Amino acid sequence: MKPIHVGLCGVGTVGGGTATVLKRNCEEIARRAGRPIVIRAAANRELDRARELVGEGVELFDDALQVVRHPDVDIVVELIGGTTIAKEVVLTAIEQGKHVVTANKKLIAEYGNEIFARAQEKGVMVAFEAAVAGGIPIIKALREGLTANKIEWVAGIINGTSNFILTEMRDKGAAFADVLKEAQRLGYAEADPTFDIEGHDAAHKLTIMSAIAFGIPVQFDKAYLEGISTLQAVDIKYAQELGYRIKLLGVTRRRPNGIELRVAPTLIPARRLIANVDGVMNAILVKGDAVGATLYYGAGAGAEPTASSVIADLVDVTRLATADPENRVPHLAFQPTAMADLPILPIDEVETCYYLRLNAEDQPGVLADVTRILADADISVDAMLQRPVSEAEGAADRADIIVLTHLAVEKHVNAALAKIEALGSINGRVVKLRLEHLNG
Amino acid sequence: MKPIHVGLCGVGTVGGGTATVLKRNCEEIARRAGRPIVIRAAANRELDRARELVGEGVELFDDALQVVRHPDVDIVVELIGGTTIAKEVVLTAIEQGKHVVTANKKLIAEYGNEIFARAQEKGVMVAFEAAVAGGIPIIKALREGLTANKIEWVAGIINGTSNFILTEMRDKGAAFADVLKEAQRLGYAEADPTFDIEGHDAAHKLTIMSAIAFGIPVQFDKAYLEGISTLQAVDIKYAQELGYRIKLLGVTRRRPNGIELRVAPTLIPARRLIANVDGVMNAILVKGDAVGATLYYGAGAGAEPTASSVIADLVDVTRLATADPENRVPHLAFQPTAMADLPILPIDEVETCYYLRLNAEDQPGVLADVTRILADADISVDAMLQRPVSEAEGAADRADIIVLTHLAVEKHVNAALAKIEALGSINGRVVKLRLEHLNG
Repeated sequence: MKPIHVGLCGVGTVGGGTATVLKRNCEEIARRAGRPIVIRAAANRELDRARELVGEGVELFDDALQVVRHPDVDIVVELIGGTTIAKEVVLTAIEQGKHVVTANKKLIAEYGNEIFARAQEKGVMVAFEAAVAGGIPIIKALREGLTANKIEWVAGIINGTSNFILTEMRDKGAAFADVLKEAQRLGYAEADPTFDIEGHDAAHKLTIMSAIAFGIPVQFDKAYLEGISTLQAVDIKYAQELGYRIKLLGVTRRRPNGIELRVAPTLIPARRLIANVDGVMNAILVKGDAVGATLYYGAGAGAEPTASSVIADLVDVTRLATADPENRVPHLAFQPTAMADLPILPIDEVETCYYLRLNAEDQPGVLADVTRILADADISVDAMLQRPVSEAEGAADRADIIVLTHLAVEKHVNAALAKIEALGSINGRVVKLRLEHLNG
Repeated sequence: MKPIHVGLCGVGTVGGGTATVLKRNCEEIARRAGRPIVIRAAANRELDRARELVGEGVELFDDALQVVRHPDVDIVVELIGGTTIAKEVVLTAIEQGKHVVTANKKLIAEYGNEIFARAQEKGVMVAFEAAVAGGIPIIKALREGLTANKIEWVAGIINGTSNFILTEMRDKGAAFADVLKEAQRLGYAEADPTFDIEGHDAAHKLTIMSAIAFGIPVQFDKAYLEGISTLQAVDIKYAQELGYRIKLLGVTRRRPNGIELRVAPTLIPARRLIANVDGVMNAILVKGDAVGATLYYGAGAGAEPTASSVIADLVDVTRLATADPENRVPHLAFQPTAMADLPILPIDEVETCYYLRLNAEDQPGVLADVTRILADADISVDAMLQRPVSEAEGAADRADIIVLTHLAVEKHVNAALAKIEALGSINGRVVKLRLEHLNG
């Protein structure tokens, strides 16, 4: 099918990530959208950088409006940021009858009502998943996944800079000013960090979520902001003593008399999952009247995480813009792919880490025998415990030997266990459980 | 706009929840779908129960196929379960050219390929968000939110019964058999719990997720299953000592030579968020090449959580089936609603809990003064700490008094704090931070 053409306005961090992922995963994306999605034109101040990232075959401009007005561009992607040029780009695209995908939280939070009204008049779509919480598909969850619910409240850790600082303050008992310097050094905070640490960025995103959750206009000017720069280490300490963590939390809640819309350092019970979201990660907790509480967690910023959401919007817009029934069905139906030839691996071929527990006679040499067998099978040990096991009176002393392995193939583990079980010093079968680090 | 008509096959737990939520939130749902969604006909073995739940104006049958063949039904919702009648219902609906929404994990996991192939031939949609992890919109996240990614792996706690049992075994150091009895008593486990505790239910859901994540056919017969019934309390203890939790984890992972598809009790580092998902809640962790790791958490079962996903699918199918551009746009554009009149509350009107820290002279009577002022303002105290603060030599002894309050209105708190700060024994300003329990 004929490709859909994207006009990329801004080839900075997110623009670069978008171009990179669109290229790397072009097959998957084309299959899911029903047609290829290609960058037809792009605009950036620095043309050399743009050319490096978008490759050949893309018409380059230093003026974004030329991309917007390009006759061959179907969807305009606005990744410039701010509310001056970006606003003109988005409104011009709408006037041109072109769909818009943006990551611009400030623009949507401050001018969303005007932008959406114009889009509705012209019958075009404005998508902004990437504007809130980076790669986490929270807008889609609020607007589609939870559409059966009356939303009661939304609470989010939605600014990575401030969450990183608060995590460090707690982990190290350090003062705000010292941690801020560290964050700046690591690139997690800007030279002028005001926007992140005083809650502006979080409030932009919260405002957008409140509009989707409650069906109200975006009202950023009414949001209450309180940042983290006056937070003292001693309060983090006392909060912990009382069983709480302090997070810069955006809260929007429906009350009989109105809607709460506020960002402030807030104590949360330590046992809540969201209280344990640390570093630069984001998380949003949503309470709906039918589903109860649901939590969404992931990378709230970064080139490829944010690009993930930009492209999810491009695929959505492409599917909906391509009106024929043929292309609507694969959306919800299964479509076998080139991958259909990839077999399901039998359990023997699985490669993972293992927990092993052996019951052994408590004597020297047993451990050496066991570790020798594992080493011979190329199974390397990550951790080991040995614990005495109390036996009936008169019986020989026995011990539990617990081993955690690094990655190993199941059939090799099984073969090694058979040898271990054959040792005279080992009693019965070895308990074998799999172990997943779930970090990559 | 003309309502879309639903044929509800099965008015059990989920069917009842679906009818209830469709009624209660009919306005929101109609606005989001672009037209009302109404139950036109329903089938259930017990007609009285069905009538109670669906109300008047719905044609009732005891034979689901009559609902499927009803000339006025547009979308068939299959909530019968199992793979005999339910399979006939779904295939007949497809033959009739009707869209299908189902919560039936067993049916999709075991017959999905045939069902999707038929649906594609007939150009109808088959939606199954409710079949995996109850109210968590995980299918939508995998298929749409993360569509820019090559999925690397999916790991899920997707059976509430077994997760409840494992949580209890760890919290109480109890044996499996004892906890199972308790779970049965509480209604979290069936009289015959095999399906849940031996991993069949989790494997059905995992199989479906693997098909969406990797674009492969559903291959339930190839899934590896290992349940929790042989798990010993001592292994949970050792795992914890080594820094791990044990969960019944479904894992599907892309390898160069194939796809892993396995459910087994698995150790996970205790610091992972997913390791701390307890009780009957579910969570799925997904690793994508662009976005990294994202986590989705919520109620995996229950009448209204599952109904939340059934209805989300109904809204999706309705939007897509209603092909005109007019109704596609509101999908992604903002639509001001009747709620637009609900004002954003000024911060003074916000009602929440508070953390207060006062610096006071360490003498009797101070605490009484402070608690009197709070009581007079109707601010009730949840917890309190008093901690000495070391001062410069020769200076009077001072103390930090920390107070956690129950729900209070901000302006009342501010007024009380002004009075407290006016006390001679209080030094400087009171530190005030908000506190959110985030439990309802």
